[in-house]
Amino acid sequence: MARTKGDHEARRREVSEAVWRVLAAQGFDGLTLRAVAAELGATTGLLTHYFPAKRDLVRHALDLLDERTAARPRRAGGEGLAAVRAALLDILPLDPEATASNRIWVSSWDTALADPTLSSDHAARYARGRARLAELIATAQSRGELPAGDPDRLALGAQSFALGLVVQALLAPAEFPPERQARLLDDYLTALAAGPPLSS
Amino acid sequence: MARTKGDHEARRREVSEAVWRVLAAQGFDGLTLRAVAAELGATTGLLTHYFPAKRDLVRHALDLLDERTAARPRRAGGEGLAAVRAALLDILPLDPEATASNRIWVSSWDTALADPTLSSDHAARYARGRARLAELIATAQSRGELPAGDPDRLALGAQSFALGLVVQALLAPAEFPPERQARLLDDYLTALAAGPPLSS
Repeated sequence: MARTKGDHEARRREVSEAVWRVLAAQGFDGLTLRAVAAELGATTGLLTHYFPAKRDLVRHALDLLDERTAARPRRAGGEGLAAVRAALLDILPLDPEATASNRIWVSSWDTALADPTLSSDHAARYARGRARLAELIATAQSRGELPAGDPDRLALGAQSFALGLVVQALLAPAEFPPERQARLLDDYLTALAAGPPLSS
Repeated sequence: MARTKGDHEARRREVSEAVWRVLAAQGFDGLTLRAVAAELGATTGLLTHYFPAKRDLVRHALDLLDERTAARPRRAGGEGLAAVRAALLDILPLDPEATASNRIWVSSWDTALADPTLSSDHAARYARGRARLAELIATAQSRGELPAGDPDRLALGAQSFALGLVVQALLAPAEFPPERQARLLDDYLTALAAGPPLSS
């Protein structure tokens, strides 16, 4: 019994790894039962045992993305504004692992926008990320490193900036080496820190 | 002859309209010959006459997106920083037409990232938009409304901010009514205007 369960778990992990590799190479548009089966060297029939429909495959892919994102090591960023900077650097595609994750995230928006449930799952993911960022921003404000104003509103602006930079960097990787991404982020944070309190 | 050519043109326009409606409703993942045929009330066979493969359909969709984006009326924005603001407002999903276009843009990234040619076409589109924005920024700088520094670098930051806000607003439309999007943009521009010259 125990061994059978272990085998089943091992097989599930293999399937997940294959899903991840297909996504990183081909995006959500290329994520089909056939492609995952080919990556795994298995039959499509075996795959339908795990994923009866494409939608199940997509949901699994998004869960995987959450897990991998949560498991990624975070930069040690110090405190205050330095911690805000570190959290934003963690979003950017500065290394191969972060590039693969971001590529998959960006790809997932097409599927998410066509499906209200997935879309609101995604919005909730961003809201959670924003709440974490707002806490760091509030600390930076209390240290006098960022202007006064609703930390959520500042977090939303900072998150938007980082997301847009992710898109640009993925579409034109040669134009956006890591140093340039970091410099653009620093331009943003420097202006933010110098700005007046948020207007009401 | 003339009438036949006119009929052909009219039919092409009908096909394009159907492609657009499928995209706006279902994104690129839902853009199939079958879906366009159903929208058009035609056979898949007729469609393959226009688009031998899915890739041709995608390219046509991206051309349509360019045409529609170019044809969209622009805000009259005054001069200097006001013109920069108007150009950025033009990017945001503030009305149904801009929302549909943006939804299709965001959807197209999945397909583009899986295809180097489409990906570099996209990067070139953003570079053109950035060049236009940089001109407006240079004027605002010459009027003393924005700090000194490379206008392309400021344009890149502003474009990133707008793109990221587009994504957030599309995924959570109820959270991002037009006033809130405009206010977030104004927060961004206020900080930018108050910031120091760009560091080298």
